[in-house]
Amino acid sequence: MKVMNSELLSSCSEMVDCFNEIAMNSDCRVVVLSGAGKFFTAGIDLTDVASDVLSPEGDDAARISWNIRKKLFKFQEAFSVIERCPKPVVVAIHGACIGGGVDLISACDIRMCTQDAWFQVKEVDIGLAADVGTLQRLPKVIGSRSLVNELALTARKMFADEAKSSGLVSRVFADKEAMMAGALEMAGEIAARSPVAVQGTKINLIYSRDHSVTEGLDYMATWNMSMLQTQDVMKSAQAAMEKKSPKSVVFSKF
Amino acid sequence: MKVMNSELLSSCSEMVDCFNEIAMNSDCRVVVLSGAGKFFTAGIDLTDVASDVLSPEGDDAARISWNIRKKLFKFQEAFSVIERCPKPVVVAIHGACIGGGVDLISACDIRMCTQDAWFQVKEVDIGLAADVGTLQRLPKVIGSRSLVNELALTARKMFADEAKSSGLVSRVFADKEAMMAGALEMAGEIAARSPVAVQGTKINLIYSRDHSVTEGLDYMATWNMSMLQTQDVMKSAQAAMEKKSPKSVVFSKF
Amino acid sequence: MKVMNSELLSSCSEMVDCFNEIAMNSDCRVVVLSGAGKFFTAGIDLTDVASDVLSPEGDDAARISWNIRKKLFKFQEAFSVIERCPKPVVVAIHGACIGGGVDLISACDIRMCTQDAWFQVKEVDIGLAADVGTLQRLPKVIGSRSLVNELALTARKMFADEAKSSGLVSRVFADKEAMMAGALEMAGEIAARSPVAVQGTKINLIYSRDHSVTEGLDYMATWNMSMLQTQDVMKSAQAAMEKKSPKSVVFSKF
Amino acid sequence: MKVMNSELLSSCSEMVDCFNEIAMNSDCRVVVLSGAGKFFTAGIDLTDVASDVLSPEGDDAARISWNIRKKLFKFQEAFSVIERCPKPVVVAIHGACIGGGVDLISACDIRMCTQDAWFQVKEVDIGLAADVGTLQRLPKVIGSRSLVNELALTARKMFADEAKSSGLVSRVFADKEAMMAGALEMAGEIAARSPVAVQGTKINLIYSRDHSVTEGLDYMATWNMSMLQTQDVMKSAQAAMEKKSPKSVVFSKF
Amino acid sequence: MKVMNSELLSSCSEMVDCFNEIAMNSDCRVVVLSGAGKFFTAGIDLTDVASDVLSPEGDDAARISWNIRKKLFKFQEAFSVIERCPKPVVVAIHGACIGGGVDLISACDIRMCTQDAWFQVKEVDIGLAADVGTLQRLPKVIGSRSLVNELALTARKMFADEAKSSGLVSRVFADKEAMMAGALEMAGEIAARSPVAVQGTKINLIYSRDHSVTEGLDYMATWNMSMLQTQDVMKSAQAAMEKKSPKSVVFSKF
Amino acid sequence: MKVMNSELLSSCSEMVDCFNEIAMNSDCRVVVLSGAGKFFTAGIDLTDVASDVLSPEGDDAARISWNIRKKLFKFQEAFSVIERCPKPVVVAIHGACIGGGVDLISACDIRMCTQDAWFQVKEVDIGLAADVGTLQRLPKVIGSRSLVNELALTARKMFADEAKSSGLVSRVFADKEAMMAGALEMAGEIAARSPVAVQGTKINLIYSRDHSVTEGLDYMATWNMSMLQTQDVMKSAQAAMEKKSPKSVVFSKF
Repeated sequence: MKVMNSELLSSCSEMVDCFNEIAMNSDCRVVVLSGAGKFFTAGIDLTDVASDVLSPEGDDAARISWNIRKKLFKFQEAFSVIERCPKPVVVAIHGACIGGGVDLISACDIRMCTQDAWFQVKEVDIGLAADVGTLQRLPKVIGSRSLVNELALTARKMFADEAKSSGLVSRVFADKEAMMAGALEMAGEIAARSPVAVQGTKINLIYSRDHSVTEGLDYMATWNMSMLQTQDVMKSAQAAMEKKSPKSVVFSKF
Repeated sequence: MKVMNSELLSSCSEMVDCFNEIAMNSDCRVVVLSGAGKFFTAGIDLTDVASDVLSPEGDDAARISWNIRKKLFKFQEAFSVIERCPKPVVVAIHGACIGGGVDLISACDIRMCTQDAWFQVKEVDIGLAADVGTLQRLPKVIGSRSLVNELALTARKMFADEAKSSGLVSRVFADKEAMMAGALEMAGEIAARSPVAVQGTKINLIYSRDHSVTEGLDYMATWNMSMLQTQDVMKSAQAAMEKKSPKSVVFSKF
Repeated sequence: MKVMNSELLSSCSEMVDCFNEIAMNSDCRVVVLSGAGKFFTAGIDLTDVASDVLSPEGDDAARISWNIRKKLFKFQEAFSVIERCPKPVVVAIHGACIGGGVDLISACDIRMCTQDAWFQVKEVDIGLAADVGTLQRLPKVIGSRSLVNELALTARKMFADEAKSSGLVSRVFADKEAMMAGALEMAGEIAARSPVAVQGTKINLIYSRDHSVTEGLDYMATWNMSMLQTQDVMKSAQAAMEKKSPKSVVFSKF
Repeated sequence: MKVMNSELLSSCSEMVDCFNEIAMNSDCRVVVLSGAGKFFTAGIDLTDVASDVLSPEGDDAARISWNIRKKLFKFQEAFSVIERCPKPVVVAIHGACIGGGVDLISACDIRMCTQDAWFQVKEVDIGLAADVGTLQRLPKVIGSRSLVNELALTARKMFADEAKSSGLVSRVFADKEAMMAGALEMAGEIAARSPVAVQGTKINLIYSRDHSVTEGLDYMATWNMSMLQTQDVMKSAQAAMEKKSPKSVVFSKF
Repeated sequence: MKVMNSELLSSCSEMVDCFNEIAMNSDCRVVVLSGAGKFFTAGIDLTDVASDVLSPEGDDAARISWNIRKKLFKFQEAFSVIERCPKPVVVAIHGACIGGGVDLISACDIRMCTQDAWFQVKEVDIGLAADVGTLQRLPKVIGSRSLVNELALTARKMFADEAKSSGLVSRVFADKEAMMAGALEMAGEIAARSPVAVQGTKINLIYSRDHSVTEGLDYMATWNMSMLQTQDVMKSAQAAMEKKSPKSVVFSKF
Repeated sequence: MKVMNSELLSSCSEMVDCFNEIAMNSDCRVVVLSGAGKFFTAGIDLTDVASDVLSPEGDDAARISWNIRKKLFKFQEAFSVIERCPKPVVVAIHGACIGGGVDLISACDIRMCTQDAWFQVKEVDIGLAADVGTLQRLPKVIGSRSLVNELALTARKMFADEAKSSGLVSRVFADKEAMMAGALEMAGEIAARSPVAVQGTKINLIYSRDHSVTEGLDYMATWNMSMLQTQDVMKSAQAAMEKKSPKSVVFSKF
């Protein structure tokens, strides 16, 4: 289990390095992501965006485009790396979650927030279509397409209650302290279980999102033909037969 | 912003012409669609359907099929044109929304209704599977598949509260007057923003619905490599730094 | 209409035989699936799993894998057969619905439960990723991805209220008796309608889930070019013009 | 059967109108496309391209892009319409086939050429990636990917012999007269057969190119469930049993 | 190794049973398919087709369609079962290969023929689009799309030389005796190698045909993570280091 | 233009680093890849494979699988990086091209070889299914599926003539010296052209391989809406109007 705060995320490449390290480190089984300051994330600083986008490199519009595209792939990678990391990522949101913050949480696995949290797909307000994941992932995370469109096209704020009823978050807590306790408890539940089972579950849930049911089932069977040979099944079955908690079992590194 | 009423929609080709015109007209930035009469739409007149389908052209079942298929593609086009139009379409529903009405609203971007609105996927009652968009779009618009199946297989009515809780609509208003005010206000919010941002958002939201996240991200970056070169980003950033509303900015035609 | 109970489901091949028979039997128009005992399903018996998985056949890990994969495809088939059966399947759940039970209900078309029902994606507790359909179908059945991930990664129980608000079930009843009455009434509604319409609706809803909207529309038109030539449309239109219930119409076998 | 020459193709919209008319006209069963002048096609006039592309409309690079994209879709449509037309298109090429000519022939169904014909994917020579179909269709038309890449990246000429051995054309004739006779004979063969069979074959060949084998088979069965009900099967079977040529049968309009 | 002749193939279900048995029988490692009589296959008997298709079951065109579709899926299954069988199938063709014969050989893995063999996609001559695999598989088996279209739209014969140069067959033999010797030798080569390697190769070649390269690579890695744990690698490496033929190694059942 | 030899490729990560560097270096416009020694590549050293695969890490078969899968993704990356690099890669093969060599050349854009070259998909001989690209890319590179299957299932050698007639290579040279001259000349042709045009061509050719024609066209238009704004079109058009060679034009960095 690894607790991170948003100060770590000062740049895309730190994000990529961080999650690649987590992916490789078999001592880490689950990630809790939260914001250290007053807000979860204050959004992209507009001055930064302006200077970044408005100082284009290249001799003509084609060459400027080419350089922008390379930069965008790098930004997108900062959030896609969360999804490719096989360890589940629980994100705990308090206060404002704006712009890049929504891209970030959409790429996490489990979302929870405080009663005072609010969410804003801000990009349309600064003249651009959200391009690092919100438009791609948010509609697959929330059940109501009308709501997703409304949020993305009007940049209106969404508060905790609507975030819960729409399914963006699965839990709302009274305050940050309660939320962190809840997030860590949930992370503990996950970390205590077989890492073969947990990481196989994340990988196949994401695979299935992007494929037909038939293709998802084929991949799953091809995955589990080896994974079911783990000792973890025996150990877990034993514990269950002895009426012990799954958490009492010690699993090898994975 | 363009206000239409359902009387305009007397035929498929009018619908296609209307939305193609909207798509080309750079003065139009958003569409509000509502019903003029007592209901949003009274459904397909059964006598019309019967005479249309039961007077088949063709010398044998294959040739009749061929002619029906051509006709169906034409009907489908009347709603698909809404989706292909890059300007967002807000639909405001009062009273009954039956049969073809559900096909229509499923193809719109943002759905809102009055407290007295009700919805009915009527086709199964007239002996056919809904073939102009409901079966394709409704499950991608509503979060509960059990509910979609129930509606499509039993033709039962769904009222405003369930439409809201299931995510079909994102807003419910007390009456038509309040709804129209709300729809126009929301349309105003959208129309005031950068058309580069707004239309890029709609196009990418629809693209992403039908592709994997990875593919959606690739298309998005390829899209924005040119679109981020708009002056609208600079203008919007400027306004933000000066604490002005995004709505105070004047954007060029798009 | 066919009423089954879970005692029938003692093995995968019985399940496959049963639904293949239902698919071929044109007297059967809809299926109601419910549990006969104290629970809907008590989950996979862990001793069985253990003995099944832990007595591998094969001379090396590759050969064991190969045999496990064949077995998994057979297990998956037991639930996929429900989806391939063109007759709608209404599932009525009371008490516990655990492990394989969740795989089963995710493959059904309409889900309803009693107030005392609860659901548990149990697999992670026994050291494995759910591999017979839950990870593939549950996220396409429920609107909130955060909730799906939470259920699959922590194996926590979900009760009837959350099952309803998340869209897993579309109806909750006070007790089993009320639920069975409700399930049979709904099945009656479906069975009374044109089987051409009903089965075409199920087939196209499932096709559309796994394809883009454009592809779904093309398939739909190709499907209905023949299906609209049914007499059922005429019969239904006639009934409607005479203000009779669709249920008063007698449709031929399909 | 309709004989066209390239003078007709002076503009994209003429092309679209022409093939839409062919598609609707049930008297037309096959198309032969050939060039009237010294060459099949002399390629895009560079002055035209330059003036078209270099006189951009729009206030900034994003708006110029948007207008270019709309124009490109219109150009692409001029060749895609050939593919969507269900009547087979035989193209007969003599002399030079350059640039847009390659886009054009790649969208046809059967290609034949004279011994003096040559082909050139010219776009890279004028500073652009071929964007109206060559890069998309040529690799699916020719078996050697190394050759396709060589042609597209170096703009070298390919002559008739290599066009035949690589599979771009399926027949080579000594001169234009012989080729036209061959093309018309082949068109006659096609036109004499059941239009239900011929057009269903074209539609399913194109569908299968863009889908997996499983999906192609499903679509095919859904297509033929009505198309096999044609009287053409009976008529053809009768002719076969009576040892008559399929060409002796008179088929109804389709 | 199993030698079959076309007399065995008197019905679809025999074909399905036969290949399912082969798939399950770990003593069988490769299949050689050839024709026993004067021809490889004389095509579908037209009287049979006529009586089968022209004696439709069902009260209206929709119900007839439904029954035809079920029958077509059964016919398609007779050839798809070859593809799903993980043991490679070598097909040896002499004399005529017509209609259903082309569907059959397109579903096999390796094709060889005698100098006197000829091929004919006959369906268009009997008024129908080929619906049991030719239109789906032939274009993925041959490099020239122009040739495939010509064959399917004109029903012309293709002889051994063109079959070889177009890539339909990879070997041509002087006569049947030589071909059978060649087929059995090739089958012997395949049967002597590791069945883990051979069957994994077939399964992944077919998977990759229907997926993008990226998806094929992901599936391949997920497949081989267990399959590389076979002792066959060690045994084969040992033999190679000792300069022995791979055929000298004895592999366990798979 | 960059000339590499296979000695550079001693490890996967060198390969990845090398092509990433090429991708970023705007002075490099095309790559020629050739072998320095007696052969293009002698295949994977079997001792290495054995020691790599047969010294598995992990406490059980599942954990060993997991580690193998990570390693395989790394191996695959060594060739996929060639495909993702937007600069065209010309590969010149002499002598033996075995095992990993075939994976390598399948990922290149243009293949040429000497008269004495031969190719062997060797993996089946060492007990495994080829898992770093051959099974995924070779069938999309060669027109004859029967030949691909034969090569992969029997590990037989293929010589230069068959490599040419099957389309694996597009050019055969008498000896290595002639080939290197030819390769460098072709690379010179490519390097002299607009890098906007050349790299856009490669990227879209690869995109189109893995998508339907419709999707490829959409991506192409979205790509070129900015890329056509390059000055290279103007410069090239100017040169053409002045009857100068495209190679006389100086293009900016890209």
